[in-house]
Amino acid sequence: MGVLFDELDKEMKRRRLSTVLVVGESTLGNPELAYVAGTAITRGGIFIKRRGQEPLLVVSNIDIGNAKRGRVRKVRTCSDYGFEKLVARHGRERGYVLLIDAILRSVRGGGRLSMYGHNELSRFLFVTDALRKLGYKVIGEGDSSLIESLRETKDPLEISRVRSVGARASRVVNAILDTLRDCKMSSGKLKWKRRTLTVGMVKSKINLMLAEQDLMAPEGTIFAVGRCSADPHEVGHSSSPVRAGTPIVFDLFPVGPDRYWFDLTRTLVVGKAKPLVKRMFETVLEVQLHSLDSIRENLPAREVMNSACDLFERRGFKTVRDMLRGDGQAAKVGFIHSLGHGVGLTIGEKPYLSLLSDDRIRRNQIMTVEPGLYDPRVGGVRIEDTVLVAGRGITNLTPLDKELEI
Amino acid sequence: MGVLFDELDKEMKRRRLSTVLVVGESTLGNPELAYVAGTAITRGGIFIKRRGQEPLLVVSNIDIGNAKRGRVRKVRTCSDYGFEKLVARHGRERGYVLLIDAILRSVRGGGRLSMYGHNELSRFLFVTDALRKLGYKVIGEGDSSLIESLRETKDPLEISRVRSVGARASRVVNAILDTLRDCKMSSGKLKWKRRTLTVGMVKSKINLMLAEQDLMAPEGTIFAVGRCSADPHEVGHSSSPVRAGTPIVFDLFPVGPDRYWFDLTRTLVVGKAKPLVKRMFETVLEVQLHSLDSIRENLPAREVMNSACDLFERRGFKTVRDMLRGDGQAAKVGFIHSLGHGVGLTIGEKPYLSLLSDDRIRRNQIMTVEPGLYDPRVGGVRIEDTVLVAGRGITNLTPLDKELEI
Repeated sequence: MGVLFDELDKEMKRRRLSTVLVVGESTLGNPELAYVAGTAITRGGIFIKRRGQEPLLVVSNIDIGNAKRGRVRKVRTCSDYGFEKLVARHGRERGYVLLIDAILRSVRGGGRLSMYGHNELSRFLFVTDALRKLGYKVIGEGDSSLIESLRETKDPLEISRVRSVGARASRVVNAILDTLRDCKMSSGKLKWKRRTLTVGMVKSKINLMLAEQDLMAPEGTIFAVGRCSADPHEVGHSSSPVRAGTPIVFDLFPVGPDRYWFDLTRTLVVGKAKPLVKRMFETVLEVQLHSLDSIRENLPAREVMNSACDLFERRGFKTVRDMLRGDGQAAKVGFIHSLGHGVGLTIGEKPYLSLLSDDRIRRNQIMTVEPGLYDPRVGGVRIEDTVLVAGRGITNLTPLDKELEI
Repeated sequence: MGVLFDELDKEMKRRRLSTVLVVGESTLGNPELAYVAGTAITRGGIFIKRRGQEPLLVVSNIDIGNAKRGRVRKVRTCSDYGFEKLVARHGRERGYVLLIDAILRSVRGGGRLSMYGHNELSRFLFVTDALRKLGYKVIGEGDSSLIESLRETKDPLEISRVRSVGARASRVVNAILDTLRDCKMSSGKLKWKRRTLTVGMVKSKINLMLAEQDLMAPEGTIFAVGRCSADPHEVGHSSSPVRAGTPIVFDLFPVGPDRYWFDLTRTLVVGKAKPLVKRMFETVLEVQLHSLDSIRENLPAREVMNSACDLFERRGFKTVRDMLRGDGQAAKVGFIHSLGHGVGLTIGEKPYLSLLSDDRIRRNQIMTVEPGLYDPRVGGVRIEDTVLVAGRGITNLTPLDKELEI
């Protein structure tokens, strides 16, 4: 059946599930369906697997070619189950419920049944309620759903896809740094071809270079200059000039044509950095290297986070732990976010390197390690690599230097 | 409260809903949350509205700035409801349920309650089951959910955003056509700078030009050359040469930074087209102009589709109606898809111009009109504009010529 479906079987057994459905109107924005189908399906489909049996994928006529390029061998069309007639007789929504019912009956699916996929909640609550009325035992899984848990470790093809996005994204970062180095300076602002370089101009360049590398950044790019970089999610104001002597947080999170993501951040100062910014940078770098070193198979993910907080606190900085202890200031100053998160078909998934995480470090996970320090008086510093958990320790997938001043 | 929230109130009354929740982990890939929030919220949030009251938006600390740029005036953070402590005490999932419960109690929400947003089904089935156990009457809406129905017509800002994407996308199409015109020819293949022009090279150019226009195409672009264009969803093989004398279906569906989409298709032949392709093109163009003319407020959307099928059939071509009548060949030859679909925060939404649609044409809808003819022997022809339903008839948002031979 293939490694993935064998693992799926094991997990189904562990969770006492008889039947698994993964559904959706498209694989775009639906990582669960993209994952089990192993291919892009424009109009989506219905993946169904009974425990111990080959899975089946049902798609619209138009997607049969796409579906067959994926990892499911048994592909059928909705028309095979009389979908058009069901919709004509019962309307779109009821027709869809009866289609699922017909597919379930064809594979004798039933028992404890779970359904996955990113879908419109209200519509699918209607669908699951209707399936329950038909007698199906539809189970909702909370934290660490079956598919989420399978997606947590990556197979060699997934790893090579993430690695390739990382190599290309790093080229874009280096080219942008070269552009900044090539700029002339005039009263603290960077000049490019005699014009004041703005954040908007830099972002246009980034998007062009991403396109040249066959990447794109559908969630945007953070290029936050100066004090506004103290807000970790501030993306940067298009009209702001790029200034020297102040931190620039450059966080790039592009996706490749195979829909795998990458996430990296560099912080830089054009010219001379202020002493406080330098000290923040050195501490963040120290914590990052320490964290990269401390990642080991079987370690609880929150220990990596706690160990990073320990070091920050030893160096005299506040962390999110202070916030949890009731220190309101720690919501805005210090290390105010989590240490990292998984990367794959989404830009934020398990494992989470956070204080409340129940995840465990496992071989072939891919995750970010991104400590940061923020101070509204001067701005922010963050250094982020995306890394793979290998045999012992990690393999860094981010071939980029870490230097503050350029 | 603003026009949108007034309309929301009216719809809540009509649907006998007391409380509406729109939830999600991010506004990306979550058009429902993006719509009610009116802004991008990285970590998502919880939108809640009791009938007759101002809505409330609850986000993470980090997103408070983003949230306040949107259309909801009352913004709070999850911490205001003790979220961190709830998660520490009860775990991520149960903590989230108790957060929703706390927010609901704070606005005295309850009664018939519906929940919207694109979210992972299994996880949110757990959440809605848990809310039901707490006594909430959570209702799933099937076809034409409340938010879907509000999103069906566009306000002036939305219209201007779609229009702007259309103008820029049209520039990209024209530039690509110019490139094709500038190519030399050698044994039926196009040459560009002495190299054989491939579909992959054209797509790279398209992505670069899109980036120059501050657009991107996260779902890809269709550039299908020759007989493979007979499959409406064939995106084109990167290594295929661009050939003369055979149809090229060029379907571009980019999105702008404000997350509004556009959809347009042109079919072209470099050099001379075969008589059958010419006749297909002339018929598709005739049907498209006829359909654009026939769109009127209050018309059932399926009538526009039926009228297009009538004309195709009068001209001797098969349509999807033949397929529904049991003609298997009509699944692959003729007019084998629907006439159009709405465009906005997604690339496929209401109204649907299809045979089984229950939608009605209304002023300020934006939709595609995209008849096509397909024949595996020669390829496909499709012409697609995105148009706005205006006072009487439509305003075409696609400033592009419709010529077959270039």
